[in-house]
Amino acid sequence: MRVQVCIIGGGPSGLLLSQLLHLQGIDTVVLERRSRDYVLGRIRAGVLESGMCDLLRRAGVGERLDAEGFVHNGTRISARGHDFRIDFKKLTDRTVTVYGQTEVTQDLYAARDAMDGKIIEEAEGVTIHEPTSDAPWVTYTKDGTEHRIDCDWIAGCDGFHGVSRQTIPQERRQEFEKVYPFGWLGILSRTPPVDHELIYSNHPRGFALCSMRNANLSRYYVQAPVDDKVEAWSDDRFWDELKRRIPEEAADKLITGPSIEKSIAPLRSFIAEPMRWGRLFLVGDAAHIVPPTGAKGLNLAASDVHYLSRALIALYAGDGDEGVETYSTQALARVWKASRFSWWMTSTLHSFPDQGDFGQRMQEAEIAYLEQSPAAQTALAENYVGLPY
Amino acid sequence: MRVQVCIIGGGPSGLLLSQLLHLQGIDTVVLERRSRDYVLGRIRAGVLESGMCDLLRRAGVGERLDAEGFVHNGTRISARGHDFRIDFKKLTDRTVTVYGQTEVTQDLYAARDAMDGKIIEEAEGVTIHEPTSDAPWVTYTKDGTEHRIDCDWIAGCDGFHGVSRQTIPQERRQEFEKVYPFGWLGILSRTPPVDHELIYSNHPRGFALCSMRNANLSRYYVQAPVDDKVEAWSDDRFWDELKRRIPEEAADKLITGPSIEKSIAPLRSFIAEPMRWGRLFLVGDAAHIVPPTGAKGLNLAASDVHYLSRALIALYAGDGDEGVETYSTQALARVWKASRFSWWMTSTLHSFPDQGDFGQRMQEAEIAYLEQSPAAQTALAENYVGLPY
Repeated sequence: MRVQVCIIGGGPSGLLLSQLLHLQGIDTVVLERRSRDYVLGRIRAGVLESGMCDLLRRAGVGERLDAEGFVHNGTRISARGHDFRIDFKKLTDRTVTVYGQTEVTQDLYAARDAMDGKIIEEAEGVTIHEPTSDAPWVTYTKDGTEHRIDCDWIAGCDGFHGVSRQTIPQERRQEFEKVYPFGWLGILSRTPPVDHELIYSNHPRGFALCSMRNANLSRYYVQAPVDDKVEAWSDDRFWDELKRRIPEEAADKLITGPSIEKSIAPLRSFIAEPMRWGRLFLVGDAAHIVPPTGAKGLNLAASDVHYLSRALIALYAGDGDEGVETYSTQALARVWKASRFSWWMTSTLHSFPDQGDFGQRMQEAEIAYLEQSPAAQTALAENYVGLPY
Repeated sequence: MRVQVCIIGGGPSGLLLSQLLHLQGIDTVVLERRSRDYVLGRIRAGVLESGMCDLLRRAGVGERLDAEGFVHNGTRISARGHDFRIDFKKLTDRTVTVYGQTEVTQDLYAARDAMDGKIIEEAEGVTIHEPTSDAPWVTYTKDGTEHRIDCDWIAGCDGFHGVSRQTIPQERRQEFEKVYPFGWLGILSRTPPVDHELIYSNHPRGFALCSMRNANLSRYYVQAPVDDKVEAWSDDRFWDELKRRIPEEAADKLITGPSIEKSIAPLRSFIAEPMRWGRLFLVGDAAHIVPPTGAKGLNLAASDVHYLSRALIALYAGDGDEGVETYSTQALARVWKASRFSWWMTSTLHSFPDQGDFGQRMQEAEIAYLEQSPAAQTALAENYVGLPY
């Protein structure tokens, strides 16, 4: 098979890229290691920046998002049992939309199917060949047969554990990493959310977050040791711990119920440079991971897709290769800024083993300052709704 | 002797407090352990917030400050060899004034002398008695004779190593501390400053700061191991290191000269709570220390003096004791915010032994974000010129 752009990875970024390119007449194929059911079974958060929502609309997949997504005009921040609201809409004239990553992926699959987009599921052993030549190619195995795809460009949308980043010789890439000394214990429950917006809570016992999927599906998190066993956390223990960490008024009206999912996730910051190697581009988690605080992961993948789709569309339209040449620099500038924000949200809201009383009080002072300063609130809000592409 | 307010410590905060109280007819005495010459010989930085300048004017000591102080409308911030300016005046409509702490102290001594203010120098063995009773008293020894001062209130302006804080029983106070793993190596030279404003510089080799006392007296600092010996730093080595860390354009035009003072100072954050114990108030360094980054130390002492003078003036004017009752809470709210700012400036600009490449790049991303965001610049500026009293 020959295509213009071979996309490795059928998660939201690979699908969105193929959709945006296809709309401009660029021929793509998406290779996904897993089955579609598996991809759609992954439960991920979904707090979408307004720029990502615009991008989805441009890709023709904004209809259900606009009908079913929950627009959040602000968020609540809590420390020392006291909370206040940051009004995104007032401070930045923009908002975020709560719409699960699974829903985004579903919409994208439907749109790709409607356009007869080429998606190859269960493609095993994907290998990138000669990415620095003018004629790169990709091989994979399906149902025991090896296949070859010749292409102009390769987009590595295959996540942190994918082959794309590993294809760049180790001595030619630099990796930056911070592993946080705690995890997020999260549960999903069929209960109405305690608030119509998110509540981020700093507490000496550890961070807590009240979030949601929809009007009757809540997602709650508490900071926990990353090596804790989920089995050690009964639903009762979880709800008790959550209630101790959130504002009393929220704890009082919290409706609890049996968990339908419960897991502990590690927190990590990771960035690999460069994001382009010859004719291979890295997109999203293949190049960078952020801790979930502030919900930047999916949004950062979307901004990579924005830069890359724009670059390739310009190239094939005969408008030159400037976008391609600057993709890595442009994408990374925003990646570092969003990583900084995620790191700052994480550092300000979590309890670190070595922070001591001084560190706890610095966090509380930071949050107290945030409450009083429109400038500090604007800085948080403009990052939360997403820095401009 | 009997006075209304006994002030322990003849540095700028003790003198300013006695001046402000005396102007309202409140009788004070200042006890200073050292000689006046010794106090005036201490070289300290002086970047005064606009609120502190107003307070000095209200105390009748603004004349020379206004004639000789250098108003700074902004500051320069540098990282990765690139620098930009933060315009305090434009962002906050306020400024800071460079005017040495020694000058402030001199002006205050002159004003106290002109009003026949009672200042007792070389008062040794100062001891506070019965601060929680209605009739506290203070003893000291001078020229071999013990003296006793009866008073209504005691103001502890005697610095970090003074007796005032220690008078509060250990089990009734809480102390918060962070010692930074580096020091500031500073030199003073009779050379024109490299810029008319300060340059704060982040560099992988460590922080650097270009500052000044006046048009022909420069003060430069580089981050250095706190246990380095000053003798290991020849003037040449200092200038070479400074030039490597500041923007090239500044390094090129830097005029060097022999150092007339050279020292290494540790960096520490420290806060003691409460700041009142019965009839004893803690003021300035007696209760809190900040690292020098952002120049908050003297300014924070001034805001303590503002709260305390206002409280005592109201009390003696028959307007009630609310100010006295809330002094500790009010002063501490601002102390924590300024401590947070000093900690943030320090954390963002210095190289920490354990930060790694990720930490260095987070700092650079923070500074890059600062350059692009008016909101983030306003947050820095409003702290730098001083949060409202």
